[in-house]
Amino acid sequence: VKKVKKIAIVGGTHGNEKTGAWLVRKLMKAPGSVQRKGFETILRISNAKAVEKCVRYIEEDLNRRFNPAELADPGKNSYEALLAKELNEELGPKGAEKPAVDFILDLHTTTSNMGVTAILDSRDELAWQAAAYLQAHDPNVRIFTWKGDTGESDFVHSIAPAGFALEVGPIPQGVLRADIFEKTERAVQHILDFFEKLNAGTLEKSDAELEVYDSVTLLDFPRDEEGEIAGMVHPELQDQDYKLLKKGDPLFITLEGETIPYDQEEPLHAVFVNEAAYYEKGFAMSLSRKVRKPLP
Amino acid sequence: VKKVKKIAIVGGTHGNEKTGAWLVRKLMKAPGSVQRKGFETILRISNAKAVEKCVRYIEEDLNRRFNPAELADPGKNSYEALLAKELNEELGPKGAEKPAVDFILDLHTTTSNMGVTAILDSRDELAWQAAAYLQAHDPNVRIFTWKGDTGESDFVHSIAPAGFALEVGPIPQGVLRADIFEKTERAVQHILDFFEKLNAGTLEKSDAELEVYDSVTLLDFPRDEEGEIAGMVHPELQDQDYKLLKKGDPLFITLEGETIPYDQEEPLHAVFVNEAAYYEKGFAMSLSRKVRKPLP
Repeated sequence: VKKVKKIAIVGGTHGNEKTGAWLVRKLMKAPGSVQRKGFETILRISNAKAVEKCVRYIEEDLNRRFNPAELADPGKNSYEALLAKELNEELGPKGAEKPAVDFILDLHTTTSNMGVTAILDSRDELAWQAAAYLQAHDPNVRIFTWKGDTGESDFVHSIAPAGFALEVGPIPQGVLRADIFEKTERAVQHILDFFEKLNAGTLEKSDAELEVYDSVTLLDFPRDEEGEIAGMVHPELQDQDYKLLKKGDPLFITLEGETIPYDQEEPLHAVFVNEAAYYEKGFAMSLSRKVRKPLP
Repeated sequence: VKKVKKIAIVGGTHGNEKTGAWLVRKLMKAPGSVQRKGFETILRISNAKAVEKCVRYIEEDLNRRFNPAELADPGKNSYEALLAKELNEELGPKGAEKPAVDFILDLHTTTSNMGVTAILDSRDELAWQAAAYLQAHDPNVRIFTWKGDTGESDFVHSIAPAGFALEVGPIPQGVLRADIFEKTERAVQHILDFFEKLNAGTLEKSDAELEVYDSVTLLDFPRDEEGEIAGMVHPELQDQDYKLLKKGDPLFITLEGETIPYDQEEPLHAVFVNEAAYYEKGFAMSLSRKVRKPLP
């Protein structure tokens, strides 16, 4: 793997996920805490206005605005579209031979009980090596490969040649919790260690394979005739992210109390269970297959 | 206590507290579930637009808009100020000799681990009797007497001669949870039972006193020189609503990891610990005194 010269730690991409923004603020006040030999770390609050207003976004989701066609389109000028172009100039530009940073770690939180999860959305070698290092140094970290409502190239971290989003939960939107803050900070320090060792050539040899939860599909809530949500995540599944669902297991419970079972033949693992931000996108959870994948 | 002719169950006063709105929708579809002998129950989603957008409010907090001076002021015309005037016409008018409803139960949720709490903000006899009945039939229900950022007459339920807000948690904003939904629904049914028995003259004799958490003061988060939040609720207090804080007990932890202890001489109970909606109001928790109060 190639050495890195500059990386970025980004928080506040979703303004109501306070943890990342407050952690970046803390690190900005103590720049020594991110200084490591051999590379520079940029700290950036990506959507400061959304953080100030404590909303996910002002006009549209910033973390879906980095599609190359959209970045190049002068007609795209929502608040977040313009912000995306600005971030792209500053940390990229995307696809350039010599972008400003080599890697972006984008800090998120979730209302789902997902612990610390690295969301990988490409087969980029550096991102996978960094995620493997993170898991090797904290066995509670899980790896989830994203296949969601968007192409893999639309995320903030796609500005850089490599990167990923870190999801930490459970935590309500608009709240800081000491436990979630500490877990996020520890993960950031592991990632900095990784790059320091990578540059120094002292990285421990990692496993050739990684256990990942590989996205299969997204499930919507039960809906009534008007399209409104008519059921909730079943209590036996709520807070049980990464649980293996087998045919017949309770999945939803309607407002009237009727259980709707999981009806697929293949057992799959539920992830992003009851994440608040996904109500507007129309999904109640993601289903994934636990597999071992070779590192790219 | 006087008999009632009409009561209202209100949800969606804060649009991102989905539980109340979805419960009211469910009850609207099955009107038989709120039909009781001797009185009529009106079901109302108070801020449907905020529910649709899943925000606390469109322009300002609806649940602080029922001050008589503000209701009478034609210059007050924010989205929620106009909505308040409309609700006041429909369910009140406030202070009238014959208002449209005798009692309002307003359904809320909180990110704090408060279980089911009746928030009493007046010494109205009917509200206290109803809360006492609720607690007698569900010993987990707590009574909290409000002294907050507002006068007692600014709440939605103040339109009626009697009423209170029900807070149920913990639940993130923007989310439905089956456990919180079920607890809220059970409380609503107890309240309906109360009025049915009251009208029929079959109410069990209740205790002359009630254990209440009586508001003493509000505590803000630690702040840095720019006024930004510089510390979080201490892990030993997070999720421990109603805990008795004694001098020296851990209260906050700064972003740098330093513990800030509770420093008041009088031990007090922490309530509304780390409620998301109160960040913008500048308080981290409410402190209260556990007392026994005679029913009015």
